[in-house]
Amino acid sequence: VLDVLQVERAAERLKGISIRTPLLRNFELDEVAGGKVLIKPECLQVTGSFKIRGAYNHLSQLSESEAKNGVVAWSSGNHAQGVAAAGALLGIHTTIVMPEDAPRAKLANTRRLGGEVVTYDRYTGDREAIARGIAAERGAAIVPSYDHEHIIAGQGTTGLEIADDALAMGMELHQVLIPCGGGGLSSGSAIALTARIPGVDVYAVEPSEFDDTARSFVSGSRLPVDKNARSICDALQSTMPGELTFPVNQKLLKGVLTVTDDEVRSAIRFAFRNLKLVVEPGGAVALAAVLSGKLETAGKTTAIVLSGGNIDVELFAEIQTEPA
Amino acid sequence: VLDVLQVERAAERLKGISIRTPLLRNFELDEVAGGKVLIKPECLQVTGSFKIRGAYNHLSQLSESEAKNGVVAWSSGNHAQGVAAAGALLGIHTTIVMPEDAPRAKLANTRRLGGEVVTYDRYTGDREAIARGIAAERGAAIVPSYDHEHIIAGQGTTGLEIADDALAMGMELHQVLIPCGGGGLSSGSAIALTARIPGVDVYAVEPSEFDDTARSFVSGSRLPVDKNARSICDALQSTMPGELTFPVNQKLLKGVLTVTDDEVRSAIRFAFRNLKLVVEPGGAVALAAVLSGKLETAGKTTAIVLSGGNIDVELFAEIQTEPA
Repeated sequence: VLDVLQVERAAERLKGISIRTPLLRNFELDEVAGGKVLIKPECLQVTGSFKIRGAYNHLSQLSESEAKNGVVAWSSGNHAQGVAAAGALLGIHTTIVMPEDAPRAKLANTRRLGGEVVTYDRYTGDREAIARGIAAERGAAIVPSYDHEHIIAGQGTTGLEIADDALAMGMELHQVLIPCGGGGLSSGSAIALTARIPGVDVYAVEPSEFDDTARSFVSGSRLPVDKNARSICDALQSTMPGELTFPVNQKLLKGVLTVTDDEVRSAIRFAFRNLKLVVEPGGAVALAAVLSGKLETAGKTTAIVLSGGNIDVELFAEIQTEPA
Repeated sequence: VLDVLQVERAAERLKGISIRTPLLRNFELDEVAGGKVLIKPECLQVTGSFKIRGAYNHLSQLSESEAKNGVVAWSSGNHAQGVAAAGALLGIHTTIVMPEDAPRAKLANTRRLGGEVVTYDRYTGDREAIARGIAAERGAAIVPSYDHEHIIAGQGTTGLEIADDALAMGMELHQVLIPCGGGGLSSGSAIALTARIPGVDVYAVEPSEFDDTARSFVSGSRLPVDKNARSICDALQSTMPGELTFPVNQKLLKGVLTVTDDEVRSAIRFAFRNLKLVVEPGGAVALAAVLSGKLETAGKTTAIVLSGGNIDVELFAEIQTEPA
């Protein structure tokens, strides 16, 4: 059973590995929200996103024989860096299948961390088939990017820290907004948050074109995204809610919000100007939801996760210098 | 007497006003340093720099009659925003004399916070004379940007937090690097740090052309900067060490380091790529000193203050996209 105990055990394993990122406050953001906003900046996390949490929690539980054969993963870049870093820390060889148009920073960092990178075409290639081929050939284990209990529990330590820190600050937390691709971060965090703070409303936030969890949440069954979907949020382009993550999200989330690319760009500008944080598109969706009024924040205390900050400098400069 | 008690009292006054910024860690920075580096990101502070600490500590201690007549300050922008914000919180009218070429973000934010802005020419005007004229006319008090015990004690809460948080983390802190303009932040922080951690080495860091504290430290008496000095660090262009700050710095600092504009630009790029933090030039000098090896960091635990993040987007984009 996947419950808060597994998240707590993951938190134990992650001591000294992941950073306990702080809960930040910003006056301008409170002003826009008309309430209190607690910012969980996972862009400041090791490898620039929350993904080290799940990856390390999983890799550290592999058997010796599994570890010896190395692991294979596919990822647009944040899970890639998380897996590569966890592998480097544990002495496990890692191979990661990444889209050839992934942000250069993500490709370079994954390689720098010691990951073996295999690239494919995001729109025509089948990353899962490529990864499974490599894994079969080498007898290597697959590290799913979200659909595994160890991954979900690891990512959930993000929500656990939010809950514990908000309680320690004496804040009554009303709602939490969490970026959602495959749903690992939102499901794991929802488990921890609702266990620690009964009655808290947890929302997942998706790019409007990759709204598979939003539509699935409404319909009650897992629906895929449109094949022609495009989004600036390279980190949130999973095409279908997870088998394990979706039932958890369905049960524990209050709802699923969506934001447009323009709202995301505007949030990245806000983060630069006011928060002084570098946030990547997929990491900015929860902030975008607050800034564009996708839910009521007035008079409430809302926590948002900025899930990553791995953005290429050219895109960042382009977004910052375009007219608001 | 200016001692750690005054810094502790300032910390009490600042509760609920300034943010207790975290001590961050980053693997890439540790790797470059060959040791542990603790990052104090005052760019995440209210108004985007540490300056709210001293400004609020001072304004909150004005008598009722002083407060009624408002206050006047001069500043290139960070003290301006700190004074304006403190004034807004306390209901005190603030007038700030700022260079007309100050970063637009600093001018705009000071006005947005309710400060009355009077501009002058940085290279031909006399900001102090203008400010004293306005103050005399209105019977308003001057809020010095560094040379006042309340200001020094307020800025010193930065060092107090570093010491207390490092001790709470069980870290043995060997040295601390602090950006230095007029010397308020470094002197106040040195008071707190050396009181809490006897034997810790505290260094001030200056832009190489505005090395008045460095040269004064060596000569033993206060020396001015060259009239033709220029630096990308708009926040650190004070022309002479303070009457109050210098004796403290002289007594408590281990030394004063300097960094070039190129080293600062490189540090701003490093902060974007690895720390995911937006740091302004003057805020990046301590990081620049570590990255360019201005002192031994191997095997040591070094804390650095990133003192501000108020940089205009055009300059930020230019620095980020230039070749490393």
